[in-house]
This record gives sequence, structure tokens and C-alpha cells, in this order.
Amino acid sequence: MSSNERPTGLKANKGIELLTFGTPNGWKASIILEELKEAYGTDYTFQAINISQNIQKEEWFTKLGPNGRIPVIVDHDQGGFAVQEGLAILAYLTRHYDPEHKFSFSDPLDVSRAEQWMAWQHGGLGPMQGQANHFNRFAKERIAYGMQRYTGETERLVGILDSHLKDTDYLVGNKYSIADIASFGWIHMLTFSGVNIDGFPNLKAWWERINARPAVQKGLAVPTKPQIPDNGSYPQKLKDDPEFAQKEKTLAEQIKAAKEQYGYKYASP
Amino acid sequence: MSSNERPTGLKANKGIELLTFGTPNGWKASIILEELKEAYGTDYTFQAINISQNIQKEEWFTKLGPNGRIPVIVDHDQGGFAVQEGLAILAYLTRHYDPEHKFSFSDPLDVSRAEQWMAWQHGGLGPMQGQANHFNRFAKERIAYGMQRYTGETERLVGILDSHLKDTDYLVGNKYSIADIASFGWIHMLTFSGVNIDGFPNLKAWWERINARPAVQKGLAVPTKPQIPDNGSYPQKLKDDPEFAQKEKTLAEQIKAAKEQYGYKYASP
Repeated sequence: MSSNERPTGLKANKGIELLTFGTPNGWKASIILEELKEAYGTDYTFQAINISQNIQKEEWFTKLGPNGRIPVIVDHDQGGFAVQEGLAILAYLTRHYDPEHKFSFSDPLDVSRAEQWMAWQHGGLGPMQGQANHFNRFAKERIAYGMQRYTGETERLVGILDSHLKDTDYLVGNKYSIADIASFGWIHMLTFSGVNIDGFPNLKAWWERINARPAVQKGLAVPTKPQIPDNGSYPQKLKDDPEFAQKEKTLAEQIKAAKEQYGYKYASP
Repeated sequence: MSSNERPTGLKANKGIELLTFGTPNGWKASIILEELKEAYGTDYTFQAINISQNIQKEEWFTKLGPNGRIPVIVDHDQGGFAVQEGLAILAYLTRHYDPEHKFSFSDPLDVSRAEQWMAWQHGGLGPMQGQANHFNRFAKERIAYGMQRYTGETERLVGILDSHLKDTDYLVGNKYSIADIASFGWIHMLTFSGVNIDGFPNLKAWWERINARPAVQKGLAVPTKPQIPDNGSYPQKLKDDPEFAQKEKTLAEQIKAAKEQYGYKYASP
């Protein structure tokens, strides 16, 4: 579909249909779908749901995903069964379409380990880094209390990932899985959120490892390549774009001042 | 254990050991454990982790729950396997200890439906109502922007539950389950968070239905009965305690003023 068409309903009638936009939560779904496609040949359809136009609040969408948030998947091969919430999408797709457990687990304790890291991302890293983005970037006013609160909580959370990754390449069973996919998209934009990934070397190595996967690169381009710089393109953009560099310098100073104002001290885990 | 003993490690050597405190997240674990106890006779041990003393940040605790948050369970019958994150605890306990699916599901689509509602609570209602509590109650300053942002988001989220409960008594399959338990504890304190439950009649009826279960009442008293008034005791406390009533009146006015200042409009779903 061309980017100026506005979706008004589902368009496929078989396989998985993904309703998404280029955000860290959206990438969970597009990355696992690209991995399954590469591993098993499972095809899928997607539609871009432009969240700045609030398409995700329209009735046809909220009938599928009552929370009014992307991503949502619809499984046309299961009578049009709809799944909302990134954690539930990752779990559903692997339970139904990863029979060889290439990205998931069969051992019940490993199933729980993956579920714990996905829940940790879903209830911690995602919402808190999301609030950091809001207070550092998107709110009309710069509110020091919110900036230091959520930047600090994001630092605490990524510190936990960094510690866990000291002796292992992936979060569960030293195998790339949905546990990693859940957090990858958020970590991909970590520097932009106000927490420089260079401060977390184990996490940075993990991010580079996953970012190098072809299916991950394909998933990041669904529905279109993101405009916001990721950890990789951010340093280059600072060099190439003096206006961007100046804004980033001001933001970093504001975050630092906010932390000082409220006596913030890094503590993780 | 008496309340002034400070836990320094695990104390049981068989069955489930729960490390918890009397909060909406803690109650997820204590309620399902009380339900399993009543249904199957499964016993469990618990220890109170006083979060105001930061016991959950001590090394013995973070080895079990690296996020440094309650609740955590340890399954001594599975080699001391530890589970953190409420969603993962509810899923683990029912997968291993609810063979008749009294509080969970066997149909794979119902499994996903329950998982979606648990993830919705874990990533939405929990973190956002938690932020509402923070800005409305616990932050040292009253910051209007934060108050209206998180009170408003909590209203949007509970509006979704209220709509969903229009034609059903429980969230999934019209059967009481872990999907309900995940959200119950947060809804139990909804009025205190700054969103009066009386505005959401279907949700209030659901809350009363679940609150009437003996195992739920037992779970709410683990490790000790909460001091903060729930939806049921809040109106009575307003009548009995004029100082409390005055503080609540001031808070309600501050929230209203904060919403007006930022042009907040209720919209749900």
C-alpha cells in the first residue's frame, strides 16, 4: 500500500496480518515475523498504522486490539484471532509457528526464564524508557523531575541487562530468542532516549550481535525505515548535523542538571 | 516470623517460598497461591520483604530476582528455581500446579487471551497506575503535569476493562482466572490512586465479585493486612477521619486543576 492510503480494515485473508508502525514495540512483532519467515518460510502481510494520525484509536482497530496500541497481529488461519501486547504476540507466534523452538524453548524452566525477561521488558524497560522519551523529547515543557526520574529508572534497568550479559551472549540459555527480541528494539534507541549505550559494554556487544542479523534488519524496516537515529547512526548524525548536535548537547545538559537538582545517584541492580 | 526480624535469605526447603510485601504486585502471587492452596491443598511459605527498608535490593534477594522488586517465588521442589515478575509468577504457578486448569486455560486461544490481559496489566495498568500513585501521593512536590498525565492514562486503561466487562463476569472465557488476578490488586486500590471506581460500574461489580472470594481475602492479608484504604474501606474512612477527608478533598482539587491546566479530556478506549 502507498504511504498516503489510510487503512480502514484488514486486507489479507490467510496467514498472519500485522498492524504496526516503526516503534520499539512494533519491531518486536516485525522482527519475530521476519525470523520465522527466514527459518520456516512463513509469510505474512503488514499494514502501516500511522499512530500520529490515531488510526489505532479507530473502531475497526480497537475491535482487534482494545488497548488502541500497535502492534496487533491477526491470524487468518485461526479464524481471524487477534493478539495485542508485544509479549503475547511473541509468545503466540512461537507457540504456533516455531515448532523446532529456534527462537523459543521447550524446557519448562527455560520457558519461564524467557517469560520472565519478556515480562521484565514489558513492565519495566518499555514503559520506563517510554516515559524517559516523553519527558526528554516529546513533552512540550522540560520538567526536570520527570526527566531525572525516568532517565534514572532506564539506567537502572539497562544496568540489570548489562550485568546479566556479562557471562552470556543472549538472555536465556545462551541462545538468541524471543527474550532478546523483546528488549532489542528499546535498546536499539537507547542513546536517543538519553542513556548512552557506551556506558554499558556487555549490552552494547549484545545489541551489535542482534543488530547484525539480516532478519532483524528486515524487521526494523517494517513498515518503513525509522527516522530517529539508533545507537549506530546517532554518533554519525552528531558529526554530520550541527543543529542536531547542538540540540543534543542542550538535552544532555538539561538531564544532567535535572539529576543534580534531585540528588539522583545511579544504582543498579 | 515476627515483623521486626529482617530476612537474610531463604527459610524453606520444600514447596513454594514467596518473598513479598503488601502491594498490588505482591497480591498477584499471594492470591494465586491461596487459590491453589484452597483448590489443591498446595502449601507455601512466605517471608515479608519490607520494601521501605530496601531488603529487595540486598544481594541475597537480587540473586533470586535481579530486578530488585517483589514479588519473587522460589520453587524448592524444582531445585530452588526462582521466578520474578508477576505475570511470569502467575503463568509458572498455574503451568506447574494447576493441572485441572481451575484458574488457567488449556485451549491455546484462551491461553493467549489470558496472556494478553496479563500483559496489558503488566505493561499498562500496573506501571501507569503506579506512576499516578507516585505523582498524586508519594512525590515530595505536586507536579501538575505528572498528576494529569498518569491519572488520565489510568482512567483510559480502566475504561477499557470496564467496556470489556460489560457482557462478561470475568476477563477470559467468563471464568475467574489468572487474567483477573493480575489486574485485581491494582483495581482494589483504584479509588486511592485518584480514579474513583464508582465511575466504572462494570468494573466495580467485577471487583466486588472477586473481592468476595475467601482465598482473595486471605491473599490480601499476606504478609500483613494493608494500611492503605481499598475501594471498600475508602468511603468509610472519609466519614470516620476528618483529617483524611480534608487531605483527599485537596488532592481531588489538585488533580482536577492539573487536568484543566493541560486540557485533559477523558477518552477510552
